[in-house]
Amino acid sequence: MGDVANPGPGRPRLEQRTRRGRTPRAEILDAAGELFTTNGYANTSTRAVADAVGIRQASLYHHFGAKDDILDALLSETIAAPLELAERLREIEEPAHIRLYALARFDVRQLCAARWNLGALYLLPEVRTERFAPFRLRRDELREHYERLAADTVAAAGEDGVPGAQMLPFRLVETVISIRSDAGGGAPEYAERTIPDSTLRMLGWTGDLDEVRGAAGDLLDRLAAPLPLG
Amino acid sequence: MGDVANPGPGRPRLEQRTRRGRTPRAEILDAAGELFTTNGYANTSTRAVADAVGIRQASLYHHFGAKDDILDALLSETIAAPLELAERLREIEEPAHIRLYALARFDVRQLCAARWNLGALYLLPEVRTERFAPFRLRRDELREHYERLAADTVAAAGEDGVPGAQMLPFRLVETVISIRSDAGGGAPEYAERTIPDSTLRMLGWTGDLDEVRGAAGDLLDRLAAPLPLG
Repeated sequence: MGDVANPGPGRPRLEQRTRRGRTPRAEILDAAGELFTTNGYANTSTRAVADAVGIRQASLYHHFGAKDDILDALLSETIAAPLELAERLREIEEPAHIRLYALARFDVRQLCAARWNLGALYLLPEVRTERFAPFRLRRDELREHYERLAADTVAAAGEDGVPGAQMLPFRLVETVISIRSDAGGGAPEYAERTIPDSTLRMLGWTGDLDEVRGAAGDLLDRLAAPLPLG
Repeated sequence: MGDVANPGPGRPRLEQRTRRGRTPRAEILDAAGELFTTNGYANTSTRAVADAVGIRQASLYHHFGAKDDILDALLSETIAAPLELAERLREIEEPAHIRLYALARFDVRQLCAARWNLGALYLLPEVRTERFAPFRLRRDELREHYERLAADTVAAAGEDGVPGAQMLPFRLVETVISIRSDAGGGAPEYAERTIPDSTLRMLGWTGDLDEVRGAAGDLLDRLAAPLPLG
């Protein structure tokens, strides 16, 4: 049974519960997100994750069969919301550059707002293994949404764009990951505006950015695009 | 002594020497570059590096005191040549956009040409520790060179650029690291031209890119900017 001062093996949670998240699963993901990004994925055991949550390892395995299942869930979190938004934006009758701006702004913001800089895990060698093929496919889908919107933006601008430039907006958005990493935590405020603005300029789109910013904001409000909590 | 078929402990090198590099130090760096980027840094022991070179662990320690010294040498390799070029470009009387283009092109090319995608190691949590503070300072210097050239390019273009855009050329160049990672090896050919081109467009510079490309190429030839061998 144990009391608070000397908890039995089943109860350490009472004292150690410092994790964010309203469910045990969310608490495990929060702890793993911290440990994977600050101590490294290979350096972190499922035991260390369980300890950080204040649960037993057996309880952790009730939610995740193995450490790579936790990593997969964390990686999927980083693309789920922008991918859902990108799919909804396909159905919307708005100029491509406004939809691209909305997607880029939303994505930068959610990558900045996440409590741990999970995008830093994309470059792990483990993520290139077969186990993570489904995650990579979904991230490719997101990349293709960006490329389609960017190509349409270039076509509508009617100018000779830089060949291949439609490949870069997705990459430019993901630079917030290294910006956050170098800043040692959060991203500087300029990112959320500068990156989407620069995305359009890079594609040769020379119109009024204040107007696009307003239109993209309205569009996100209309779609009630949910910002995941960090 | 041992013969080739059954080498003694001092001689396995004769059979296993498959590494690139003309010195033992270069061979160790090549093996470590492969293992760190394909198996992961934490997953790789100095013993595994020594085995991959075909030398004894004691011989490895003759060149590098610890595993983090090998990592530091590999990381330093990724910025040494562009940093040297950036310092020389400061002295050159050429418009800022041409110098920026030359630096970006050179840097993209050397990041693509390196045998292993070492930039993927920048995001390791280990690199944020005190041990790597000198490396981080040198990378910051390189970043500042980019930002200065980018700010001068914006100023010379005389247009209202996107606020903060001078922070992004350095970041855009480093996207070749994730492009290479996603491609599972080399970077696609478009990168070497598209990224420097897009860097100038992003800054609001709207001049003729063919001319800049030519002028930047001449400048690199004049400086005989050496491309590190991959």
